[in-house]
Amino acid sequence: MGMASARLMIDLDALRANYTRFQTLVGPRCAVAGIVKANAYGLGVEPVARVLLQAGCDLFFVATLDEALALRGTLAPEYPEIAVLGGLYAGAEKEYPANGLTPVLNTMGEVSRWGHAAPGRPAILHVDTGMNRLGLDGDDVARLLDDPGLLCGVPLSAIMSHFACADEPDHPMTLGQKSRFMDIAAYFPGVKRSLSNSAGLFLGSEYHFDIVRPGIALYGGAPLAGRPNPMHPVVGLEAQVLQLRRVRKGETVGYGASHRFERDGLCATVALGYADGFLRSLSGRGKMFWKQYSLPIVGRVSMDLVTLDCTGIPEADLPCPGDFVEIIGKNQSLESVASDAGTIPYEILTGMGARYHRVWKAQRDVRDEKFLSERAKF
Amino acid sequence: MGMASARLMIDLDALRANYTRFQTLVGPRCAVAGIVKANAYGLGVEPVARVLLQAGCDLFFVATLDEALALRGTLAPEYPEIAVLGGLYAGAEKEYPANGLTPVLNTMGEVSRWGHAAPGRPAILHVDTGMNRLGLDGDDVARLLDDPGLLCGVPLSAIMSHFACADEPDHPMTLGQKSRFMDIAAYFPGVKRSLSNSAGLFLGSEYHFDIVRPGIALYGGAPLAGRPNPMHPVVGLEAQVLQLRRVRKGETVGYGASHRFERDGLCATVALGYADGFLRSLSGRGKMFWKQYSLPIVGRVSMDLVTLDCTGIPEADLPCPGDFVEIIGKNQSLESVASDAGTIPYEILTGMGARYHRVWKAQRDVRDEKFLSERAKF
Repeated sequence: MGMASARLMIDLDALRANYTRFQTLVGPRCAVAGIVKANAYGLGVEPVARVLLQAGCDLFFVATLDEALALRGTLAPEYPEIAVLGGLYAGAEKEYPANGLTPVLNTMGEVSRWGHAAPGRPAILHVDTGMNRLGLDGDDVARLLDDPGLLCGVPLSAIMSHFACADEPDHPMTLGQKSRFMDIAAYFPGVKRSLSNSAGLFLGSEYHFDIVRPGIALYGGAPLAGRPNPMHPVVGLEAQVLQLRRVRKGETVGYGASHRFERDGLCATVALGYADGFLRSLSGRGKMFWKQYSLPIVGRVSMDLVTLDCTGIPEADLPCPGDFVEIIGKNQSLESVASDAGTIPYEILTGMGARYHRVWKAQRDVRDEKFLSERAKF
Repeated sequence: MGMASARLMIDLDALRANYTRFQTLVGPRCAVAGIVKANAYGLGVEPVARVLLQAGCDLFFVATLDEALALRGTLAPEYPEIAVLGGLYAGAEKEYPANGLTPVLNTMGEVSRWGHAAPGRPAILHVDTGMNRLGLDGDDVARLLDDPGLLCGVPLSAIMSHFACADEPDHPMTLGQKSRFMDIAAYFPGVKRSLSNSAGLFLGSEYHFDIVRPGIALYGGAPLAGRPNPMHPVVGLEAQVLQLRRVRKGETVGYGASHRFERDGLCATVALGYADGFLRSLSGRGKMFWKQYSLPIVGRVSMDLVTLDCTGIPEADLPCPGDFVEIIGKNQSLESVASDAGTIPYEILTGMGARYHRVWKAQRDVRDEKFLSERAKF
């Protein structure tokens, strides 16, 4: 039933290979958490979590309580651990112990509320070291070190912080954050330490500590800016050609008539648009691929359609309506699309639209086990 | 269960009022189609379609076959009419008659395939008049007028075209497109004519013809650039404050440390990000509102979080964790957010993320009728 306008192919074997690569890199004494927030960066949290679990992941991070509840609904009630980066949402404290969820405690208020809501249950403590987004600030930390009784009733399963600039390998802030983190963590002997995201993981073993949290690199994105990407690509994207059009010199295409043809030519109208997360900033920028041909995007990206210039392709090589052109694949990387759109691969991934037909490919079956509940949309 | 990080409020009464306003404007001899593609511009196709049906809409337009099938699944098998703008997908011809769907025929190939797949069943013919995206081109039209037998077996329920620049009221192209459309339509006496989108509808009665197709204006967006917006706002958006942070002069916030504080201050970390369609281009631009205060976005928008500068707000007026700040509402319009993001309201609407809790508000109950199937996610 139905017909894909566009297809998002997710290579679960590549995802697994990326994950095991992290495991090899950090060694057996460091855990690799599964970062599956934002619906596993747009790729589908259930199949992704399933692969990671099979590969030995026993700690998942999500952004919101909703995401944690959804993920828990597909997993055993108490295993693996699911941590909520957004913290302990006010008014929803009881949902966490009731569903076996670990809050990342970002404020002293959350520490206190957790101690009352779930005495004796572990939490992760988040200390800020310069990101200034979530986590205890310097005053909070000082207060806590001054009066460890404030943590009474709150056993810590880990202490964490988050890098602001680790993807720029020589950024001076990174070393400062690491140093600050180690200073604070020293006050919590025996508590596991977690600092590094994808970038930090690739900065060397002194950045690994006890738990690493690679996100973008798991999904095939480059961990470090300006360096070769060592990860396996996980994502492919292709969209259907709806129509091939002859255009005449002087004619325009799309909204605002923003592109004018300087000679007679040929265009293909392709079935995806900004409603699919194919950003409107790609208007008149970027390209798609058909066979070995690079087809420039001309005119504005509209809600459901993009126009490609096919002028100059030999007649026998032209795509036909029903053919799928490549947006991300062997000819064009996720990074390249993001760069053309003026953004980062993360935004391209998490924007992947609901209309795409998602095709999860894996050699090893990840469906027929008890892990996935009935409602799993696979 | 769960907890909203961010809430999208959809005012179905305002939507209904916008629709009936179109009806009044075009009069009883012109139909107002329901444009519900892209999940009703991100707002939820089922409740939106329900309201439009109650208001008398008997023709809906979607972009893709998938969307048509999903919508048909919530409606009676043959009523109302559902038209697929993407056309007659190759290989899926039989899905259309089997599900009571009307293809918008965009090419002569589609005309021919429809004649064979569903002889005698009506379709809508799309002729291009300058958009150069979908629809018969000049040569196709000439061929068709030359040999009307090509339409044998294909009764037309309507003939349509689409404006490229109608939102710029004085754009010379608009008059040319209208004139071209009328010339072609004259060859199809008795066939209903449809040309205008939201903008065209507001250009005057000579643009109405038999069917109008307002999209953005239905959802509260301004139909004409640079003119006052006559529509009722339909959408409100608010997000939860997770944390309030004291920051010191010289500190930075967020990824890339792109924003540095020039004095001691106070920031709020808010629970939405580009994974929710809150575009990353809003980094360091735009604002949210709390009470009467405008809070500038500082630093980069990240996947799940945005930072607001709250410096200078009196202590007693500060938001607390758990409070919701306004992104779209009485203080800030959809147009304003789009402008800050460097895009158009359409992209903001259709990007509205899956994590938002959608709250549909209506005086009149739109739930307890047979229209919605069991699977309706209301």
